[in-house]
Amino acid sequence: MTEDGSGREALVPKAVVSRLSLYLRELQHLHRKDQKTISSSKLGRALGFSAAQVRKDFAYFGQFGYPGIGYRCEELIDKIKRILGTDKTWPVVLVGCGNMGQALLGYRGFAKQGFDVVAVVDVDENVLGKAFEGLVVEHIDRLPDIVKQHSLQVAILAVPANAAAAAAEQILNSGITGILNFAPVTLSVPKSVSLVEVDLAMELEQLAFSVFQNKTQ
Amino acid sequence: MTEDGSGREALVPKAVVSRLSLYLRELQHLHRKDQKTISSSKLGRALGFSAAQVRKDFAYFGQFGYPGIGYRCEELIDKIKRILGTDKTWPVVLVGCGNMGQALLGYRGFAKQGFDVVAVVDVDENVLGKAFEGLVVEHIDRLPDIVKQHSLQVAILAVPANAAAAAAEQILNSGITGILNFAPVTLSVPKSVSLVEVDLAMELEQLAFSVFQNKTQ
Repeated sequence: MTEDGSGREALVPKAVVSRLSLYLRELQHLHRKDQKTISSSKLGRALGFSAAQVRKDFAYFGQFGYPGIGYRCEELIDKIKRILGTDKTWPVVLVGCGNMGQALLGYRGFAKQGFDVVAVVDVDENVLGKAFEGLVVEHIDRLPDIVKQHSLQVAILAVPANAAAAAAEQILNSGITGILNFAPVTLSVPKSVSLVEVDLAMELEQLAFSVFQNKTQ
Repeated sequence: MTEDGSGREALVPKAVVSRLSLYLRELQHLHRKDQKTISSSKLGRALGFSAAQVRKDFAYFGQFGYPGIGYRCEELIDKIKRILGTDKTWPVVLVGCGNMGQALLGYRGFAKQGFDVVAVVDVDENVLGKAFEGLVVEHIDRLPDIVKQHSLQVAILAVPANAAAAAAEQILNSGITGILNFAPVTLSVPKSVSLVEVDLAMELEQLAFSVFQNKTQ
């Protein structure tokens, strides 16, 4: 483990990485309000974790706090971004240019998080050859060439459920090592491939709880 | 606090509710594999939490474990669903029928989580009066009538960023008390309104970390 996170453990639990995102969001919020420093207990309290949990999470990556001061917000934001790998730009290919794909193409958040969609592929003749957000949709069979040409590692999968397995296979055969899956199915991929599935179900549960709770108070 | 969760605390931290979703997902996974019971330490380990954290989280809602047995998976699944409010069906209105809205209309996960889209509204003449997934798009000005007619509490907001604030105002004026926001902007709503914002940025960070980590190993 080193201070800059470059020697971080390979076996960081997923839940820790997911809490890094929560810490980052809270720190960015504090930074916008011009708060310079924060203690582990206050950072934890804002998110419902203990101070010990906060310190333990960061300990996977190094020693980020200052005795008597706590964490320096701006510095910790930079360190977390470097750990997450969102401090630089990742070129990505969008697989699927239907409604979900087009919606994602227009989503500003990708660029903000350092993901730059450089190519779009599909199999549907209705979209092939057409341009969306300045990108001409190419046939999915061109994926290996596109991956080589742009040195891509990441694909965003946004096809209907029934097309997901076949599309995922083509993605894996093209040499891609990271998939962000918006298709409402669980994919199985080799261990060497990173897979993040967007779990809208979880967001819905959080909303249901919140509405239900307000109603029954 | 009571055993069935009906008297649960109003001040359950958001992070606890969010962990309930994670526990639920893991329990459903175990249940599909025919596992009958699990200990708090094993449930915690699978998600990167301590046994104490697991027990503390459930303690907000009652006493769910059995001494010497642990948790009964199927029973705990039902209890968590009842706590989250996803054990019943919520009728919802979809506000915005562009690419994102249409993609969401086709998303099977909503129904699976007990959300039933019963109406769609927009302002765009290109979609008004047209039917998507069996629902005819109505003008957003009809929202108060629609909300009354179906006794709605929840709206899904899926409009472009520049239209989000105006649409949110119309939603709030219609009597809706819960919003699932897919528009890439942060909305401010009164405290009495439940707001869940779908944070694609977080998913992207998790993916970046995972790809980056594989690469640097």
